[in-house]
Amino acid sequence: MSQNNSIAATRTVFFVSDGTGITAETFGHSVLSQFDIRVSERRLPFVDSLDKAEDAVRTINQTCRTEGRRAIVFSTLVKEELSVILRKSEGLYMDLIQAFIAPLEQEFSLKATHTIGRSHTSTDSAAYKNRIEAINFSLAHDDGQSNKNLEEADVILVGVSRSGKTPTTLFLAMQYGIKAANYPLTPDDFERGKLPGGLLPYRHKMFGLSIAPDRLAEIRNERLPDSKYASLLNCRYEVNEAERMMRKEGIRWMSSTTKSIEEIAATILQEIRMEARAR
Amino acid sequence: MSQNNSIAATRTVFFVSDGTGITAETFGHSVLSQFDIRVSERRLPFVDSLDKAEDAVRTINQTCRTEGRRAIVFSTLVKEELSVILRKSEGLYMDLIQAFIAPLEQEFSLKATHTIGRSHTSTDSAAYKNRIEAINFSLAHDDGQSNKNLEEADVILVGVSRSGKTPTTLFLAMQYGIKAANYPLTPDDFERGKLPGGLLPYRHKMFGLSIAPDRLAEIRNERLPDSKYASLLNCRYEVNEAERMMRKEGIRWMSSTTKSIEEIAATILQEIRMEARAR
Repeated sequence: MSQNNSIAATRTVFFVSDGTGITAETFGHSVLSQFDIRVSERRLPFVDSLDKAEDAVRTINQTCRTEGRRAIVFSTLVKEELSVILRKSEGLYMDLIQAFIAPLEQEFSLKATHTIGRSHTSTDSAAYKNRIEAINFSLAHDDGQSNKNLEEADVILVGVSRSGKTPTTLFLAMQYGIKAANYPLTPDDFERGKLPGGLLPYRHKMFGLSIAPDRLAEIRNERLPDSKYASLLNCRYEVNEAERMMRKEGIRWMSSTTKSIEEIAATILQEIRMEARAR
Repeated sequence: MSQNNSIAATRTVFFVSDGTGITAETFGHSVLSQFDIRVSERRLPFVDSLDKAEDAVRTINQTCRTEGRRAIVFSTLVKEELSVILRKSEGLYMDLIQAFIAPLEQEFSLKATHTIGRSHTSTDSAAYKNRIEAINFSLAHDDGQSNKNLEEADVILVGVSRSGKTPTTLFLAMQYGIKAANYPLTPDDFERGKLPGGLLPYRHKMFGLSIAPDRLAEIRNERLPDSKYASLLNCRYEVNEAERMMRKEGIRWMSSTTKSIEEIAATILQEIRMEARAR
């Protein structure tokens, strides 16, 4: 196959798992992002029996034949007897588990359990309950809704409307079990020249998100086209004032302009931990 | 090292990445869940320079020496010159990228770009905008807050209070860009014997969550101890009535009792897709 062909043609990528397939998918995205190719994705979750494994092979083979190209198969099947079946498909089989199990078995002097569906924390575990509690906390404290129990917050995000606070707090809760509140900084606050009331005792927990004014105007225009709220002039004013306030109050901040939720959340997590160690 | 020692002692696991480290972490959890060992986790995200790579090695080596045990290192570093440095640490180096890059380079007749931080979709992409839009949609349609734009919903979750609807809708949005609304089924609805008003036109998009009454009572008791709301008698009544209503209205449902958010979301996604193909 020529290089041009491989660029032009879309490859079908399968994520096969005996569980949700999220590990296979996250990992596959990461590896595939290293190639300039277009892919079409198909998930095959909960493949936990011989029958379902055979079904998966049929689906993959049919795709290979219809498209006249080999499909890529990322698999996290943990049972040997299932991965043996998938390995025989016409796709390129990428076995994410087996490659790493052997060195760990040796290191731990332990055999792998090959137990299905253990990759997410059990719903009874403290870690899982923490995550759910953190999600509820972040929802209850979204957009400055409540000053209650702010002493429980791990972090309080501040920033102008649409700077990315809400998705970030939810992601922090969902991925890391972090209790994150968020408060908007509004023109009212700028006129008073003060942080929203009730927040002052928690200044050490605050973290700011800023954003380039033109990007903010773009985002706000999608929501409220041609409003004062979305105008570039107003966005410049708000961002300026918010940064001035954060500087005055000694609040650390980062720009969300070109960062994904994942990147913003990972950065904040790192900052919180460093701060915690420094104190 | 004897087998007993490896079980008893906690191993430190590092997740090293030039980006957020989420891929390394998700993958590491999946592989480690196959072993009966206790681990202590440390993230080293944004390792994107020679200096930071050397720092990471120092941190890992110090941990190995302090603990007198080899640390496990899951790495998704994409730059060869950085992973070469990490490979020399005293930890057990698990290189998640290199193992899979070579076979894909051959398959695609393309060289990997080794570009850092590409594993999450660019914030400008349609897929990323979809995710943010889906999160906003799910928030605006949490707990039956709004009947507006329900025609845009990909799925509408229904179920009694605390059956897991809210975290599931947020996860569906965050992970898959699915617009998910959710509506509580309450004693008022059961007395009227009807689905909440405004939902009827969207019955084909509805999906139910049920839950074992004793588990529900446990969850509700954490929130409102010793209330009628949390009593086993009332939980039994609500769950019974909700299941009767879903059966009557022909709404598919699943039990959330022992399932994690990830498992519930992946199951719902599969059901929606099958339904969409069947129509």
